Amino acid sequence: MEDEKTRALPESKAMNGGEGPCSYAQNSSYQRGVVEAAKIRINEAIANHFDIESHSTSLGPVFIADLGCSAGPNALIAVQNILEAIDLKYKSKGLDAQISEFLVFFNDHVSNDFNTLFKSLPPNRQYFAAGVPGSFYRRLFPKASLHFMHSSCALNWLSRVPRQVMDEASPAWNKGRIHYTNAPREVVEAYATWFAKDMESFLTARAQELVVGGLLALFVPAIPDVMSNSDTFTGTEMELLGSCLIDMVKVGLVGEAKVDSFNLPVYYTFPKELKALIERNEHFSIQRMEKLNNQKKHLSLPNPSMRSLYLRAVLEGEVAKHFGNEIMDDLFNRYTKKVAGSSFFLNPETDKSTIIFVLLKRKN
Amino acid sequence: MEDEKTRALPESKAMNGGEGPCSYAQNSSYQRGVVEAAKIRINEAIANHFDIESHSTSLGPVFIADLGCSAGPNALIAVQNILEAIDLKYKSKGLDAQISEFLVFFNDHVSNDFNTLFKSLPPNRQYFAAGVPGSFYRRLFPKASLHFMHSSCALNWLSRVPRQVMDEASPAWNKGRIHYTNAPREVVEAYATWFAKDMESFLTARAQELVVGGLLALFVPAIPDVMSNSDTFTGTEMELLGSCLIDMVKVGLVGEAKVDSFNLPVYYTFPKELKALIERNEHFSIQRMEKLNNQKKHLSLPNPSMRSLYLRAVLEGEVAKHFGNEIMDDLFNRYTKKVAGSSFFLNPETDKSTIIFVLLKRKN
Repeated sequence: MEDEKTRALPESKAMNGGEGPCSYAQNSSYQRGVVEAAKIRINEAIANHFDIESHSTSLGPVFIADLGCSAGPNALIAVQNILEAIDLKYKSKGLDAQISEFLVFFNDHVSNDFNTLFKSLPPNRQYFAAGVPGSFYRRLFPKASLHFMHSSCALNWLSRVPRQVMDEASPAWNKGRIHYTNAPREVVEAYATWFAKDMESFLTARAQELVVGGLLALFVPAIPDVMSNSDTFTGTEMELLGSCLIDMVKVGLVGEAKVDSFNLPVYYTFPKELKALIERNEHFSIQRMEKLNNQKKHLSLPNPSMRSLYLRAVLEGEVAKHFGNEIMDDLFNRYTKKVAGSSFFLNPETDKSTIIFVLLKRKN
Repeated sequence: MEDEKTRALPESKAMNGGEGPCSYAQNSSYQRGVVEAAKIRINEAIANHFDIESHSTSLGPVFIADLGCSAGPNALIAVQNILEAIDLKYKSKGLDAQISEFLVFFNDHVSNDFNTLFKSLPPNRQYFAAGVPGSFYRRLFPKASLHFMHSSCALNWLSRVPRQVMDEASPAWNKGRIHYTNAPREVVEAYATWFAKDMESFLTARAQELVVGGLLALFVPAIPDVMSNSDTFTGTEMELLGSCLIDMVKVGLVGEAKVDSFNLPVYYTFPKELKALIERNEHFSIQRMEKLNNQKKHLSLPNPSMRSLYLRAVLEGEVAKHFGNEIMDDLFNRYTKKVAGSSFFLNPETDKSTIIFVLLKRKN
């Protein structure tokens, strides 16, 4: 079978599992804002581009995947939106949606908390459900088996940290930082190059898995063209978290080399860059590409503590793997204080981060 | 969609999760013996009955399911055996097995430890993998989507305890016992009736999910016709565990009513009974039906402690749900002592329990 399916990739950590106070399930209202804002795009995508005749006249099942689903309510809402949109489309064609059966695959890393995800599945759902463990940068499904694939707030996670930024001998060595925000050009370029490679792997795998005419709906965290990562809350958040670690180096709580050797595998693309990367792949046509209007993005994190919990739910696994669990409370307490003292976060207008919606169709 | 898919069934507890000393993963060598002994039956089933031409000439994916997989190595070995058998069959037909891709669905209750199962998947496996949470007594997959379904040591678990045995007003009230071993006729009948109902649900669901010509290979723990449950280790084990609880009632550690209201949802069928139940379902033809020769069944549990851990890994979830976790150590310590003092377990010949292998094919 294909190399890209079986080649070993280092396994990234997933979002915080369980349902406790630091869990992703309890601290993903920002990401939920994206899912809610995405509903209208999903509806339009399915109404205008989902090839209902060729997928369902055989009465065969419709296969749907959510890639990078994590645990918690967001994946369930996204899937519900997709199924409602398909139902609407069936009705608009005078068809009974009940004639098709749906199998929804929830995908995330092996370390994702699938047990919590499965417990949260609605018992009266109108679809069959399966969990698929593994990185979406390789093959996850048999050839030509999926009809609709969806991914929200997940493609900003790289398959791993680019090696150069951890290499003392490289001009891209990222000393004293944990991310490329405000880093030298070489560091930013190393991240961008790795993102391009990951996107290629992602699209190549999906092109094989989708049926001809199948849709790939992506919601990708990004930065407007001509802006920089330091114009965004997310970029600034990571820089701030890095500065907390540097403070802990200064008081002897963390080793300096430990910080130098740590980098977050997260990248925020630009619309132009993402478009160019997609156009490199000959198997997809871009049906739509636009900025998602997430009006609620600042309402969801009204105070420093919630902003800190949001970041902790997302990054703790990755940070704790390197620094150990014991410093996590101290680190995120310091971070909360820095957020509270930062004028940047007081003004929602400061944040230039955005979400790009791209709808791709598998060509003949 | 179908009622049987969405109707609420009480959720049974799964085998013990994790990889610790009381886990199913560490204490399922008896069940592994079944999987190993089953290999030759799987090979023959696929060689003689797997309809490779109709499943794979379209180069479409082959969908396989393991129903009641639990966590631990057994499910992985069973799946490996199935794939090796298909590979052999392709080769015997002069075909390259690489032309087909395989998606394997691992199914068990929502409470099964899917996280541990996913972590144990071989990274270089030659199949795509998905976990499917839910009871196999209802629909789990879309219509006509599976080519080969397998279930080993799982159909002895009822969907729930028959209600009459918990009803003080019923002649089937099972006072002072936790199972039907050596119980009055009415209790045994209540269990048998519920097993028949469960088998009907199971076969009706599978008939819808399998493609025409698809195979269903079942390995069902059973008792030879004309024997009784007290001739088996498993039946005797449950009676012995019940007697430990009665001892704990006598010294005031457990309430009497608590024992009276507890029953294990486990049933051991007979070959004749199982055959009659299958023949009631018009969608399947029996290709093979025979006793599995599990030579190693007594070697896998050489001493009372291991026999106790084996039972604990399987039953603790169910028992602790009713009696609480705090008495589990005491209960299984008492059980270990009783096993050590029982002549029944010293002689492997005493055990008349068996495994029935049935191979069913979905009719046109």
